[in-house]
Amino acid sequence: MLNQLLNSIADAGRDLWQRRGADGALSTDSIQALCDDLLSTRGEASGIAVARDVAHAYHALDAEGRIALFSILSDRFGPDTKRIAETAQTFRDRGDLDSYLALSKAIEPPRQEFFRRLNMAPGGTRTIVEMRSHLLQVLPEHKELKGLDEDLKHILSSWFNRGFLTLERIDWHTPADILERLIQYEAVHRMDGWDDLRRRLARDRRCFAFFHPALPGEPLIFVEVALVHGLATSIQPLLDRTEEPEDPAGADTAIFYSISNCQNGLAGISFGNFLIKQVVHELTRDLPGLKKFATLSPVPGFCRWLESQMADSESDLLSMDEFDQLAPLSQDDWHEDEKLGKALRPVLMRLCARYLTEAKSRGRPADPVTRFHIGNGAQLEQINWMGDTSRNGLTQSAGMLVNYLYDLKTIERNHESFAETGAVAHSSQVRKLI
Amino acid sequence: MLNQLLNSIADAGRDLWQRRGADGALSTDSIQALCDDLLSTRGEASGIAVARDVAHAYHALDAEGRIALFSILSDRFGPDTKRIAETAQTFRDRGDLDSYLALSKAIEPPRQEFFRRLNMAPGGTRTIVEMRSHLLQVLPEHKELKGLDEDLKHILSSWFNRGFLTLERIDWHTPADILERLIQYEAVHRMDGWDDLRRRLARDRRCFAFFHPALPGEPLIFVEVALVHGLATSIQPLLDRTEEPEDPAGADTAIFYSISNCQNGLAGISFGNFLIKQVVHELTRDLPGLKKFATLSPVPGFCRWLESQMADSESDLLSMDEFDQLAPLSQDDWHEDEKLGKALRPVLMRLCARYLTEAKSRGRPADPVTRFHIGNGAQLEQINWMGDTSRNGLTQSAGMLVNYLYDLKTIERNHESFAETGAVAHSSQVRKLI
Amino acid sequence: MLNQLLNSIADAGRDLWQRRGADGALSTDSIQALCDDLLSTRGEASGIAVARDVAHAYHALDAEGRIALFSILSDRFGPDTKRIAETAQTFRDRGDLDSYLALSKAIEPPRQEFFRRLNMAPGGTRTIVEMRSHLLQVLPEHKELKGLDEDLKHILSSWFNRGFLTLERIDWHTPADILERLIQYEAVHRMDGWDDLRRRLARDRRCFAFFHPALPGEPLIFVEVALVHGLATSIQPLLDRTEEPEDPAGADTAIFYSISNCQNGLAGISFGNFLIKQVVHELTRDLPGLKKFATLSPVPGFCRWLESQMADSESDLLSMDEFDQLAPLSQDDWHEDEKLGKALRPVLMRLCARYLTEAKSRGRPADPVTRFHIGNGAQLEQINWMGDTSRNGLTQSAGMLVNYLYDLKTIERNHESFAETGAVAHSSQVRKLI
Amino acid sequence: MLNQLLNSIADAGRDLWQRRGADGALSTDSIQALCDDLLSTRGEASGIAVARDVAHAYHALDAEGRIALFSILSDRFGPDTKRIAETAQTFRDRGDLDSYLALSKAIEPPRQEFFRRLNMAPGGTRTIVEMRSHLLQVLPEHKELKGLDEDLKHILSSWFNRGFLTLERIDWHTPADILERLIQYEAVHRMDGWDDLRRRLARDRRCFAFFHPALPGEPLIFVEVALVHGLATSIQPLLDRTEEPEDPAGADTAIFYSISNCQNGLAGISFGNFLIKQVVHELTRDLPGLKKFATLSPVPGFCRWLESQMADSESDLLSMDEFDQLAPLSQDDWHEDEKLGKALRPVLMRLCARYLTEAKSRGRPADPVTRFHIGNGAQLEQINWMGDTSRNGLTQSAGMLVNYLYDLKTIERNHESFAETGAVAHSSQVRKLI
Repeated sequence: MLNQLLNSIADAGRDLWQRRGADGALSTDSIQALCDDLLSTRGEASGIAVARDVAHAYHALDAEGRIALFSILSDRFGPDTKRIAETAQTFRDRGDLDSYLALSKAIEPPRQEFFRRLNMAPGGTRTIVEMRSHLLQVLPEHKELKGLDEDLKHILSSWFNRGFLTLERIDWHTPADILERLIQYEAVHRMDGWDDLRRRLARDRRCFAFFHPALPGEPLIFVEVALVHGLATSIQPLLDRTEEPEDPAGADTAIFYSISNCQNGLAGISFGNFLIKQVVHELTRDLPGLKKFATLSPVPGFCRWLESQMADSESDLLSMDEFDQLAPLSQDDWHEDEKLGKALRPVLMRLCARYLTEAKSRGRPADPVTRFHIGNGAQLEQINWMGDTSRNGLTQSAGMLVNYLYDLKTIERNHESFAETGAVAHSSQVRKLI
Repeated sequence: MLNQLLNSIADAGRDLWQRRGADGALSTDSIQALCDDLLSTRGEASGIAVARDVAHAYHALDAEGRIALFSILSDRFGPDTKRIAETAQTFRDRGDLDSYLALSKAIEPPRQEFFRRLNMAPGGTRTIVEMRSHLLQVLPEHKELKGLDEDLKHILSSWFNRGFLTLERIDWHTPADILERLIQYEAVHRMDGWDDLRRRLARDRRCFAFFHPALPGEPLIFVEVALVHGLATSIQPLLDRTEEPEDPAGADTAIFYSISNCQNGLAGISFGNFLIKQVVHELTRDLPGLKKFATLSPVPGFCRWLESQMADSESDLLSMDEFDQLAPLSQDDWHEDEKLGKALRPVLMRLCARYLTEAKSRGRPADPVTRFHIGNGAQLEQINWMGDTSRNGLTQSAGMLVNYLYDLKTIERNHESFAETGAVAHSSQVRKLI
Repeated sequence: MLNQLLNSIADAGRDLWQRRGADGALSTDSIQALCDDLLSTRGEASGIAVARDVAHAYHALDAEGRIALFSILSDRFGPDTKRIAETAQTFRDRGDLDSYLALSKAIEPPRQEFFRRLNMAPGGTRTIVEMRSHLLQVLPEHKELKGLDEDLKHILSSWFNRGFLTLERIDWHTPADILERLIQYEAVHRMDGWDDLRRRLARDRRCFAFFHPALPGEPLIFVEVALVHGLATSIQPLLDRTEEPEDPAGADTAIFYSISNCQNGLAGISFGNFLIKQVVHELTRDLPGLKKFATLSPVPGFCRWLESQMADSESDLLSMDEFDQLAPLSQDDWHEDEKLGKALRPVLMRLCARYLTEAKSRGRPADPVTRFHIGNGAQLEQINWMGDTSRNGLTQSAGMLVNYLYDLKTIERNHESFAETGAVAHSSQVRKLI
Repeated sequence: MLNQLLNSIADAGRDLWQRRGADGALSTDSIQALCDDLLSTRGEASGIAVARDVAHAYHALDAEGRIALFSILSDRFGPDTKRIAETAQTFRDRGDLDSYLALSKAIEPPRQEFFRRLNMAPGGTRTIVEMRSHLLQVLPEHKELKGLDEDLKHILSSWFNRGFLTLERIDWHTPADILERLIQYEAVHRMDGWDDLRRRLARDRRCFAFFHPALPGEPLIFVEVALVHGLATSIQPLLDRTEEPEDPAGADTAIFYSISNCQNGLAGISFGNFLIKQVVHELTRDLPGLKKFATLSPVPGFCRWLESQMADSESDLLSMDEFDQLAPLSQDDWHEDEKLGKALRPVLMRLCARYLTEAKSRGRPADPVTRFHIGNGAQLEQINWMGDTSRNGLTQSAGMLVNYLYDLKTIERNHESFAETGAVAHSSQVRKLI
């Protein structure tokens, strides 16, 4: 049956190239043809040829065509309910290895083999990652495809195992096509073209990315690091292109100021934890002067949380005075009013510290960035007033930036106590704020 | 629970290095300690550090220690029968996606995640392949570990998907450590050291291998090809080191005279089909003079089959005369007796043709080499008398070698008709023999 | 004596690092010290260490310091006139091999060995190329250094022999630092940043450069090629970033529209001839659809020549009428006046054809671009009206661009007849213009 | 005229391929043709095509043909005596830059340009190195070619400047074709095939070679190093294949036990000094445990010198007693007679120490190995009895091996005092022997 799918898509793919309209898209008729053709047969013997044709056909599909294909994969090549039920029954009756293996086999939907075969095409892995990216775009409106997404995620998790990734340093000797992707994928502090990038790759900066052998030239995730003296408390100087690069050998602190995922199709497969820890190792080895490794991170959920707290009449977070004090926050330019800032600072710092350490969502820190770093074993080290005065920084984080400290000596302990109690490890400095 | 396993093995690993005896092996006590330690806990946060420790511990185990570990993985970290039964019941009752996913999750034994995590260690993939190689060695006497082997095979099949393999040409510019492995792994026509290898890599020979990015320097499978004029009918001239290499541009035929798997730990994961077809493509592109692609293959099951036929009083394969004629085959030196050879030739050729085309095992060709090539879509082209007069060749194949023809135009059709009817495609020349 | 130079510069170099002023430059005193130190001695045994120190010292010199050094190399380490005279006399008297070798040795100034030793430093070749670049800058005002420049040029010519260069394709996968140099070195049609470059590296463009192993990452010369249909007659469409790239397989003509030298320090050492011919070979092999290879080149000396002709009362080039017709050329915007253009076109085209084919300087074509391409064996194929309407194009070439045709079949013949007669090979089309 | 040479050889080359006899060699007639053709002309425009044809023709020449070519290069394309005399006269009269440059130009024979052009052919450098190798073979019987050899050596010295060489580590991951060359070129302690080589590349050994970018895969010189404890005093254990490799991190001494040149065509161009010193640097960096760097070297001239001393009735080196004691040295198996050895040891050790420190040839150490290492700044550290009991070792060095110590702190001082006084730096231990 699977061969049928592969072959029919491949055949259809070839047909479709003829049938495409002037706009390059496949007509509804052609998609229908694709579906009808699914039952024809052809030999497995052609090696990777069929896989190549299928990949080709996929790239010819427009948005509608892709949904049609996803539906086919979801319906016709999803799990075989009847067979699962039968083998499950036998397993319950017998409980031996054979019945277990039979159930195991029954439970795997044929589309998994579909993806494994498609992967054999030149560029097959890339096509599958792209396919999942497309799928995730339409998933909110096509909840019936969730099972298909689970399968894709399961397979890609296995293939993109940390053991298969390579860490590469990115610098000004890196090929332009890879650098261009960095400009495009940077998600935390937008890059303003090549000159901006060039400063971020100067000798007092470091950039590392994970790559997978099947996606050459495609970074999966990258982190940007500034080599500085003492904890950086503000992002503006780090991004300032006019700052002359310093001698990295003199730095004592590495600041991870941006970490960005590059592949939508790999959403939910976590690389960040491994990336940060391996980069700490690389930097320790290359620059023995480095004594401290910390992030400079936004607090993306703070303002939203604050609003909800202020709207919640039962919250005991704020005194009436403080409540009034916070009113000017709704103004656009509050941070430029020095006096106002002075008054707001102690209140907002305290609230931010409470938000970061106390606000929870399903037992874990409410803030996604906190969740990530504390979950990795880092410690909440310092909260910085007016660390990011960009519009985005003010709107989400009230201008605050946070340092999470990665101390190899305490990472395991922090992680363990977090796993047990959900507690957010934090410094005495943060404790005082609360 | 999985973390427990990882951590306890890792802890034990470190302990064990201290406790190893003078012979470097772990004592029974230490293995007991390993098993006891399995329930202690430690943080997940250390990234790949724990995986590295586990890999380290594994390499310190001796044969007994490995069996102890396999048993733990098999018993304690095998499938959770109770949970499977429960989730299977819920699935039968509800049949929705959630219950399906719950059953899917329940059915995957924790040891799969164990391997995925172990893979993160430096050299992790290599350790796992080695682990399976060790497991396969003891499996015949430890049938209870079959489930564990199924899991390993399942994971490795996914990771060693054709799409992740790279085809590399092997020649005299290849690093010596890789060439050394070829000498060691050659399974069809034993290599007699570096001079033998050197001739097999001369300009009228080709050698290609598949590699996986996670096993650098480790060929998975390799094929040796001779570039000749017309179908080669005998192996001796191909291996003759004194033959002067010819200009490859003049050759019209590529003879695949040896194909060898290199990794015991990947047994049952098939690469040969892909390898041959891709090599045909490479050669076609590089040497447009090549018009024919064929193997020169042994018939490893022929003599055994012949014996069983002769012992079977009901077999109608042979006339009484022929039966008598075959008697001298039991002599060691029959092939050196020219007159005898002349008499035997027509009988043995006919029988070999019948064996290859008619002898079946579970509906497929009885001979494993036939099964492989015909299953790939090749055609049985020619049977060669006295093609391999080595001891091995005489004992197994009565000195016969066979050409299977890979003709890109008929591969699909052959493969299809084989899939449908099990028929062994063969040339008119072979048909005449029958 | 040479060791003295090396050592004293090296010693001085180390001192100088201490003595440098706040602006990083060496004081006049320090340079004096450098000169004084030249006579101290130190061992040759340190291998490349001394060379490294000298290179270091050189990079610490400011403009004045460099001139001081050049003077030392020129005066103290120049040719030994007395010894030359003596050995010349002996050679005249005896004329045997020994006296010849003695004269040969005497004639080579010690500074040649100085450069050979300096070359051993890490980055030594780069330092020497840079040194010549500095020297050429000051040569017009320091004519006494001409002998030093001759030595440098002689050595660099030998080292940058074509046999040591590698041709590399430049595209969007090339490291950014190399691409940045292209933007910087482009000498014919200025590049306006990364977006401009990106279009010039699209799939219907090609770019190739020569590199030398001792200058990694440093292109020596590069050529930009457009793959088009028919002879391109105008540069504007080729540089238009909004033009969608076309399928290169469909092109029948390769247009070499820009060729730029990158290293001032290698001035006078010719690479262009080899570059164009090898690129023609590469393109022929990769894109069999290409049938024609031609340049699209400026006529940089045309307007200046025209002016001089018009100022020359004895020139019989122009009729009185024509002379009057050309008057508006002095206006800035003449090319925007359609009617005017129509009137000027036949006159200017004819004059340009005559300039290119007839104007000579020391027996060779007066126009440097013509001299280069015709000297390489190309043929003047076509003159294009309004091919380059940039300010520069109008000012120098009156907006004209020229196609020189590289036809492998006629290159040798053209070159030979040029060498014999100095004649500029040209097409019948150009002949008609004259 | 030069073009004539190039072209005529190229033309001849093509002709010659037709005219070669059945044995592949060129007949005397053909060589005559080659010489006659030298005066014909062809265009320079063909770029590297002519150079390629000349290289091709050269490879077709047999021994006689090569001598014929060398004679042409020597006679017709050697220095132009008349022009040299004239320009020398002008230079004597005027002494200005122009006359100097004219003389410089006159003195360079056209064959230098011949080699520069030939170098442009693919593999041109290789051809030229080979050409010099051929020339050196015939030079003893063709002393008239000495001038030609001087030119070749001059050019190759410039091209093979240390700054263009790359140091590469050789190990078991090195391509087989390079390793094969090591087996072939090893000049000090013959390699007995691949197993011998493999032990010399084990983890307690190091091997480094210089390469030139224009001779890829061709080592120029290589050195073999053993990582041991304390000074190695005997070669046998170092070459013993049955010795288990030790952990290199534990070694405190690096013993350079073999250094071999690979290219006969580069004879007289010295790489060894640079190689040893750079390898000392590499090892110091990689293995901080190493405290001592020394050779284990033969004394190739000792026995010959001893004989000449014994034959010299005026030598006061030996007392009458000692003279008698040395008599058994002429027996083949003297070293196996324990008692005899005991008696000879003090006499021979003392004589060897005197030979090494006192015997001179033209003011420098008579022993070539001593000359090389002491000239590099090393110190004679220790003389080892029965260090090499191979036939060769006994015949040349009376079984003695010597450690020369490379101490970075004293290298310069040693080198300087050697340059000034010719004194052989030696340890107090050696002093006692004398």
